[in-house]
Amino acid sequence: MRRTAAAVVGIVAATIAVWAPGGTAQPPAADPLPSWNDSAAKKAIVDFVARVTKPGSSDFVPPAGRVAVFDNDGTLWCEQPVYTQVVFALDRVKAMAATRPEWKERQPFQAVLEGDHKSLAAAGQKGLVEVVAATHTGMTLDAFESAVKDWIAMARHPRFKRPYTECVYQPMLEVLAYLRASGFKTFIVSGGTADFMRPWAEQVYGVPPEQVIGTTFKSRYAVTDGKPAIVIEPTIDLIDDRAGKPVGIARLIGRRPVMAFGNSDGDFEMLEYTTAGPGPGFGMLVHHTDADREYAYDRTSHVGKLERGLDEAAKRGWVLADMKADWKTVFPQPERK
Amino acid sequence: MRRTAAAVVGIVAATIAVWAPGGTAQPPAADPLPSWNDSAAKKAIVDFVARVTKPGSSDFVPPAGRVAVFDNDGTLWCEQPVYTQVVFALDRVKAMAATRPEWKERQPFQAVLEGDHKSLAAAGQKGLVEVVAATHTGMTLDAFESAVKDWIAMARHPRFKRPYTECVYQPMLEVLAYLRASGFKTFIVSGGTADFMRPWAEQVYGVPPEQVIGTTFKSRYAVTDGKPAIVIEPTIDLIDDRAGKPVGIARLIGRRPVMAFGNSDGDFEMLEYTTAGPGPGFGMLVHHTDADREYAYDRTSHVGKLERGLDEAAKRGWVLADMKADWKTVFPQPERK
Repeated sequence: MRRTAAAVVGIVAATIAVWAPGGTAQPPAADPLPSWNDSAAKKAIVDFVARVTKPGSSDFVPPAGRVAVFDNDGTLWCEQPVYTQVVFALDRVKAMAATRPEWKERQPFQAVLEGDHKSLAAAGQKGLVEVVAATHTGMTLDAFESAVKDWIAMARHPRFKRPYTECVYQPMLEVLAYLRASGFKTFIVSGGTADFMRPWAEQVYGVPPEQVIGTTFKSRYAVTDGKPAIVIEPTIDLIDDRAGKPVGIARLIGRRPVMAFGNSDGDFEMLEYTTAGPGPGFGMLVHHTDADREYAYDRTSHVGKLERGLDEAAKRGWVLADMKADWKTVFPQPERK
Repeated sequence: MRRTAAAVVGIVAATIAVWAPGGTAQPPAADPLPSWNDSAAKKAIVDFVARVTKPGSSDFVPPAGRVAVFDNDGTLWCEQPVYTQVVFALDRVKAMAATRPEWKERQPFQAVLEGDHKSLAAAGQKGLVEVVAATHTGMTLDAFESAVKDWIAMARHPRFKRPYTECVYQPMLEVLAYLRASGFKTFIVSGGTADFMRPWAEQVYGVPPEQVIGTTFKSRYAVTDGKPAIVIEPTIDLIDDRAGKPVGIARLIGRRPVMAFGNSDGDFEMLEYTTAGPGPGFGMLVHHTDADREYAYDRTSHVGKLERGLDEAAKRGWVLADMKADWKTVFPQPERK
C-alpha cells in the first residue's frame, strides 16, 4: 500500500481508535466504517456526522452536545434465540441451587433445574420475572457483578459457539468508535439491566459504566462490620424499555440525544425523542434480514419485534440498516491467541 | 516573571485548563491549587493524586477508574443563609402566581406571596415540600430548565450581591480542574435536584449534565401534537442525601468513587462508601470556619449541619479543609466586563 494522504489519515484515525477505550473495534483506517457496504445506510451515517460536526454548518452541534444512544440487544449484540440475560438468569438458578434447596420443589425453579421446558413455558412472563428477581437481587452489587463477570467469561452462544461478547456486531463497533472519534459520547440504553451490562461493556464496547443505562432495581446502602456496600432490592425501579427509554435518558443523561440506534419497537420512543425534537436528529434501526449469517426476524418475532418501526421509518426519516445488504461482516474476527 | 521550567509547566497546565470545560476556574499555572495555602489539606490532595496517578504505584488507579464526587451545597457553592434552591422555589411561587390564582388564599403559598415569614415557618418541612412539588413538577423538563436558566441569570445572593453562580468556591473550582487534568471524571452528587443543577453546572463547574446526580422526581414520556417531551411528576424518585448518595452513585456511575468531597453529615455515607472500600480512597470535608469572608457553622447549623463528620474525620482519615486557615481566597474574582 502506498503512503498516500489517505493512509496518513488512516494512521491518525487508528491512533485515535487505539487511544480510545473499546479494544475490540478494528482500527477504522481511512474508511471509518469498513465493514459496511457502500450503500445508503452507511452514507446516511457519514453524511449526518459530517453535517453536525462541521463548524459553521447550520446543523453544527458543539462537542458537549454530541450524545449518541444505542440499544444493546439486537442492536449491538445478538438477541436470538433468546435474550442473553435470560440465559444468564437460568444458569444462575443452577449455580445458586446448592444454597437454595427449596428450589428443587418450587416452580418455576424446579423446571429450570430439571430442564423442564414445558413447565417453564407454562410459568410464562410471571415465572421469568420471579427467576430474574431471585437471581439478580437480594445480594450486594459487588457480588452480582462478580457473578456476571464469571458467567460472561465462560458462557457460549448455542449456535455460534463463541462467547456472547464476541457475538457483537462488527459494523456497530465501528459506528461506536467512529462517533467517539467524531467527538460524540456514546451511551447504551437497554431494556436489559444496567447491573448486567456494566461489568463488561467498557471492555467490549468502550462504553464506561456511567454511560450504561438500563432497567434498574431499587437498592439500599448497608454497612456490615464497617464495610459499606450497595444491596440490590427485589423491586423494579425503572423498566428501561419503550417509553421508559426517554425517561432513563432524561434521568441519567439530562439532555436529548442527537443520534439513536435501535432494532425493535422497544426502541421506537427513543428514536422518536431523538429525532422529533428541535435541532438535528438521526435515527437508525438495524433490520435483521440475514438468516444465514445471523437471524432473520421482524414483525412476528418473540424477541426484538419490529413492526411500528418498519411501518413508520420512511415517514420519520429513520434509516433502516439491512443486515444482509448493508453489512460486509456481522461478527468480529476472533482474536488470534 | 522569568521563563523558568516551572513557567513552561504552567503554560501547559493553563492550556489544559482552557481546553477543559469549566471556564470560571483560574488557570492553575505551575501550582494547580493557587488559592489554597500551603497547609496540610492542600498537601493531602496533591499527595493522594500523585499516589493514584503514578504508574507502577501500588495505589495506581487506571484513568477509567478515576471517579471523583462532589457535594454541591456548601462544598462547591455557598448554602447560607438558606439553600439556593429554596430561594428559587419561593421566587417561582411568585413568578407562577398569575396562573395560579388559588394560591392567594392557600397556605403555604399565600405566606410566600405575602412575605409572611411566620406562617411560612409554621408550615415547616411539609410546607416546603409542597412548595417544591408545586414549582418543580407538573411541567416538561424543557420548561423547567428554561425557568432555572432565567432565574439563575437574574438572582443575586442577599449578602454578597452577586449571582449565585459567582458564590462558588474558587479553591474547589481549582480542585475540579486539577482532578480533570489528572485524568479524573468529576461528578456532582447533591441533595438538590439534578434538574436544578444541570442547566448551569457545565458552564460553572465544567461538569456536564450526565455527571450531575441529585434528588429526582419520577417522570414520564409524553407526545403532544407530535412533539415528544419529558414531563416531571410530583413523586420523589430518589432523595440523594445521606445513605441516598451512595445509592445515587451506584445507580448513575456504577462504580465506587476514589475521591469524595463534602461538607455536612449529609455527605457522611458518600465519604464512607468512597474510603472504606478496597483500594485507595480520599475523603475531604469543607469546614465552614470563616464568618468574615463567608459563614461559620457546623454542629448546630440549620443547613449543612456537620457533627458526626467532625467527630469521626480523624479516625477515618478524612481531611478537614478549614476555610479560614486553608483558603487564600473564597470566591472567584468577578470577570472584567
